[in-house]
Amino acid sequence: MSEQLKKHIRSIPDFPKEGILFKDISTLLKNKAAFKKAVDSMAKVVKGKKIDYVLSIESRGFIFGAALAYKLGAGFVPVRKKGKLPAETISVNYSLEYGTDTLEMHKDAIKPNSKILIVDDLLATGGTMSAVVQLAEKVQAKIFGIIFLIELCDLKGREKLKGYPVYSILKY
Amino acid sequence: MSEQLKKHIRSIPDFPKEGILFKDISTLLKNKAAFKKAVDSMAKVVKGKKIDYVLSIESRGFIFGAALAYKLGAGFVPVRKKGKLPAETISVNYSLEYGTDTLEMHKDAIKPNSKILIVDDLLATGGTMSAVVQLAEKVQAKIFGIIFLIELCDLKGREKLKGYPVYSILKY
Repeated sequence: MSEQLKKHIRSIPDFPKEGILFKDISTLLKNKAAFKKAVDSMAKVVKGKKIDYVLSIESRGFIFGAALAYKLGAGFVPVRKKGKLPAETISVNYSLEYGTDTLEMHKDAIKPNSKILIVDDLLATGGTMSAVVQLAEKVQAKIFGIIFLIELCDLKGREKLKGYPVYSILKY
Repeated sequence: MSEQLKKHIRSIPDFPKEGILFKDISTLLKNKAAFKKAVDSMAKVVKGKKIDYVLSIESRGFIFGAALAYKLGAGFVPVRKKGKLPAETISVNYSLEYGTDTLEMHKDAIKPNSKILIVDDLLATGGTMSAVVQLAEKVQAKIFGIIFLIELCDLKGREKLKGYPVYSILKY
């Protein structure tokens, strides 16, 4: 099944900069059967467990996170770049290749002990996701799963997420 | 029903700047019943018509657009800020309060004569959405509906979208 889905991923050389072979998921999203199958595959990971919230990271993460929250009958919690969320937030800084960035979540978004999934489109080095995990831990969420559409296995992002259940639908 | 949903929208004064009363949808999104009801209300608009693609605008638009595309069994097409989409794009410039901005869509995202919905969280002055309509017209899509969660009626955004079927779930 994952081989079928992989056919809908397009590789774009030198984006966003020279030397990077970008995995373009827009060709999967626009194919209704492939998009449905991708979301359903993510839902299968939780095997009927009751999930309170799906957390996702803007912007591409929102696409799978929102569809999955809808499918599972869970609430949806956006994690956003600094300054985008209007109410009181908690935040975490994380390192990028050059410099740092900040992610924020509303302070009152999640009740303690909530069962959550965290969803993003791509696991590369795992830096962004480990920042989101820190946010989730700050509000004492119970992380039932961290789900990616795509995992770039060579970059070993999984190692940054040790101790958490990490799932990916498509491995490269 | 819309009164029930409105209870989940939080108003935040002076965000993103002084004098603006921001409609915060994150409190609706995190409530599983309200999020489901909002998406289902959007789906009712199309009354069983077959939709090929749902177009949405980053970032908040992605949340409702992706859930709706999943619900309707349609493909999902992201409209993004300049430079975010990796393949060949078409673009449109539009005016903001100060200056201009650019939205892009992949050139090959939509086949001519496709039946589409365009979804965003909020209709204010309608400037962004009329730019998205221009993109959709460039690829000869058939716009079956433009759907917003929230419409700020005083700002008369509907007038910028004349000739298209515009729907909003919550009117203020």
